Amino acid sequence: MNYQPKNPDYIPHIQDAFARQGLMQTFRAELQGISPGQVVIEQDFAEGLLQQHGGLHGGVIAALLDTACGLSAVTLLPAGQGILTIEFKTNFLSPGSAERFRFVGNVLKPGRRVTVSEGRAYAIGKTGDKLIASMTATMMTIDLKG
Amino acid sequence: MNYQPKNPDYIPHIQDAFARQGLMQTFRAELQGISPGQVVIEQDFAEGLLQQHGGLHGGVIAALLDTACGLSAVTLLPAGQGILTIEFKTNFLSPGSAERFRFVGNVLKPGRRVTVSEGRAYAIGKTGDKLIASMTATMMTIDLKG
Amino acid sequence: MNYQPKNPDYIPHIQDAFARQGLMQTFRAELQGISPGQVVIEQDFAEGLLQQHGGLHGGVIAALLDTACGLSAVTLLPAGQGILTIEFKTNFLSPGSAERFRFVGNVLKPGRRVTVSEGRAYAIGKTGDKLIASMTATMMTIDLKG
Amino acid sequence: MNYQPKNPDYIPHIQDAFARQGLMQTFRAELQGISPGQVVIEQDFAEGLLQQHGGLHGGVIAALLDTACGLSAVTLLPAGQGILTIEFKTNFLSPGSAERFRFVGNVLKPGRRVTVSEGRAYAIGKTGDKLIASMTATMMTIDLKG
Repeated sequence: MNYQPKNPDYIPHIQDAFARQGLMQTFRAELQGISPGQVVIEQDFAEGLLQQHGGLHGGVIAALLDTACGLSAVTLLPAGQGILTIEFKTNFLSPGSAERFRFVGNVLKPGRRVTVSEGRAYAIGKTGDKLIASMTATMMTIDLKG
Repeated sequence: MNYQPKNPDYIPHIQDAFARQGLMQTFRAELQGISPGQVVIEQDFAEGLLQQHGGLHGGVIAALLDTACGLSAVTLLPAGQGILTIEFKTNFLSPGSAERFRFVGNVLKPGRRVTVSEGRAYAIGKTGDKLIASMTATMMTIDLKG
Repeated sequence: MNYQPKNPDYIPHIQDAFARQGLMQTFRAELQGISPGQVVIEQDFAEGLLQQHGGLHGGVIAALLDTACGLSAVTLLPAGQGILTIEFKTNFLSPGSAERFRFVGNVLKPGRRVTVSEGRAYAIGKTGDKLIASMTATMMTIDLKG
Repeated sequence: MNYQPKNPDYIPHIQDAFARQGLMQTFRAELQGISPGQVVIEQDFAEGLLQQHGGLHGGVIAALLDTACGLSAVTLLPAGQGILTIEFKTNFLSPGSAERFRFVGNVLKPGRRVTVSEGRAYAIGKTGDKLIASMTATMMTIDLKG
């Protein structure tokens, strides 16, 4: 899709929104890419992000996909508007075992009131990336206060 | 529902599985209740768990509901079996603003191969708990290695 | 939950909305119960509603749960407003084999802009009803044209 | 994705499975395409498939996407195996108003025990197709009886 951003300052706006997410700091997640309708986040493996079988916790995958999907929606909003996540759904496709992971959020359907984005999570490997999870996220547009 | 556990040691087994989740330690989440088909987790507010609008990050809510739902399924498994989350879906119903939160996972349908659980997240308040999110989680039974 | 309807004519309004759904006529579905925040539909078994293994098609179950959930949301709307389904998710818990089925939609969280309802599908049996599917549905409020 | 079918007779097998779905006959849906990991169905507009606002009922869209997704999984199974839908989730992206619709199911992640497929629904128009809905469907492999 070829989207046109309505907010000329959407890149610093996304950078600022990401930086203000305490959870992304706790995870030491890194914002790697911003383009109209797409946001990419990367995350290093860490003991503190695991479930009991030694894989990345499903909630960590969901949190990073949620942030990537949510911010992908924000890239297309006019200044003064933000989003709230109404719901998301994640499928876990392969075990989350790698030293580094990539989370990509793409707008599937922008809308005035509701935006739907799709996320993909990958384990980054020497011989290529492996798809480990997918998300569909539904966001509602809200007016930001002054 | 009135479920009969198949593993007589299901309570220490759940306590151990929870303790081995690095993410629950990172969050400083507390395991508060274990009964057949139900697990309850509580979580204090912390700056490091927020999204950019100052509420609990949706991914934190999903992670705690996922753990409560997954462990609720484990309470009904025979010894030697564990679960992997196939997918979950979360609806965010009210802003996650409180000093403490409760996450309850309940088995909706146990099965030999697949178990479905439902989760409820509450903001704990002085005048009562407020429902802030719901989850449906689908888990697949796996054989644990010796 | 104890909900107060805002539209004093919500019962004939729901009856009318149900009657105008061509699909409900095709299925010969029956509207069995309307109360604030809840709608109940029943459906007889029919060859024309099956999948290839002889069970009720998942899409039929989803359609009847969607109608029950959607109309449950409508029971709480003021006159002049309607809903559009943003998304729904259905879990299939047991095979849909019976002579008659019941579909119940309940509002989980009413809202000015977004309402979330939960659905339950049952196979009606001589010794009791059996839960065969669950749904979570998210609906957006719209203004109906004059 | 480039998938290799394990059942050399997968095409007549899919045709047969589609023909045995009573619901597809009720809808007069047409099987339009079968390839490894993909199934395409088309459906004409009909009064008997509508919701109360005059659009295609969400349950009809879900039923056709479910069939396309389920059969896309079947294209990759060995002979003697079938699938049961564990769960699906549908997002409704644009009103379902057109004279004809296309439903495409694609395998996202094949698996020995669980397959995940994605569906897309389109309103077919003179100036191009319009995306009206998306689905993620999770299917469990079962052994078919002799």
